[in-house]
Amino acid sequence: MNESELRRRVAEARVARLATVDEKGHPHLVPICFALDGDTLYSAVDRKPKRTAELRRLENVRGNPWVSVLVDGYDEDWSRLWWVRLDGLAQIVADELERARALGLLQAKYEQYRAEPPEGPVLAVAVERRRGWSASDLAGQRDPA
Amino acid sequence: MNESELRRRVAEARVARLATVDEKGHPHLVPICFALDGDTLYSAVDRKPKRTAELRRLENVRGNPWVSVLVDGYDEDWSRLWWVRLDGLAQIVADELERARALGLLQAKYEQYRAEPPEGPVLAVAVERRRGWSASDLAGQRDPA
Repeated sequence: MNESELRRRVAEARVARLATVDEKGHPHLVPICFALDGDTLYSAVDRKPKRTAELRRLENVRGNPWVSVLVDGYDEDWSRLWWVRLDGLAQIVADELERARALGLLQAKYEQYRAEPPEGPVLAVAVERRRGWSASDLAGQRDPA
Repeated sequence: MNESELRRRVAEARVARLATVDEKGHPHLVPICFALDGDTLYSAVDRKPKRTAELRRLENVRGNPWVSVLVDGYDEDWSRLWWVRLDGLAQIVADELERARALGLLQAKYEQYRAEPPEGPVLAVAVERRRGWSASDLAGQRDPA
């Protein structure tokens, strides 16, 4: 999968999975909707958490900003499997202008967010590394790192 | 989502995402096919890795056995969103009988594995915690921890 194909697949995806790591070194996973702005990936929390602990992903990135985001395509025809992984550093968006811009991007992508704007914090991931794989790239080699 | 519903959704899922953590505390994500045996989740590596480093997930669980596995359903109707997260301890199956049993379960679930049995290591996750969420459980509350 070349760089432009990789970027296209991420841009077109409607859902991704976000992994963060807690203070004990345990991974945490949650599905996210997201929007891209160049090398930054934004996702929003739908509602304001009453306590930080209610949103483990936010607490985790405060302690350890390293996150991984996976977009993939499953198909019963395994020659069509693919995934793209984005690794980077996450932070909760504090700047109001950046938050507004991120919400604009999310609302441009998801009509669901236009109908009901997310109220909670916005997470920004500065993507440091992209890795993509598709079964059609290398027939028979289904399992790279 | 009650316990039986949660277990049913995991059992029916064809794909999940596995998060492991590397020695630097960075998360790593990969899609997996899997089969269940009670509270154990098995996934296989399709081909024997030439070097351990080729399969980051295996190296990671040797250093830090905590993993998280996510199964989710995306739908443009967000009232139908759901996910189930399984957290537990992973290890590479060393026992040949257990490996054969795991491969049998994987092949029973996936005809693709019957056509081409996986050659690489099998990962066993002892599930310690299950957490499930669906949008229909609590209308409007889309984002729990």
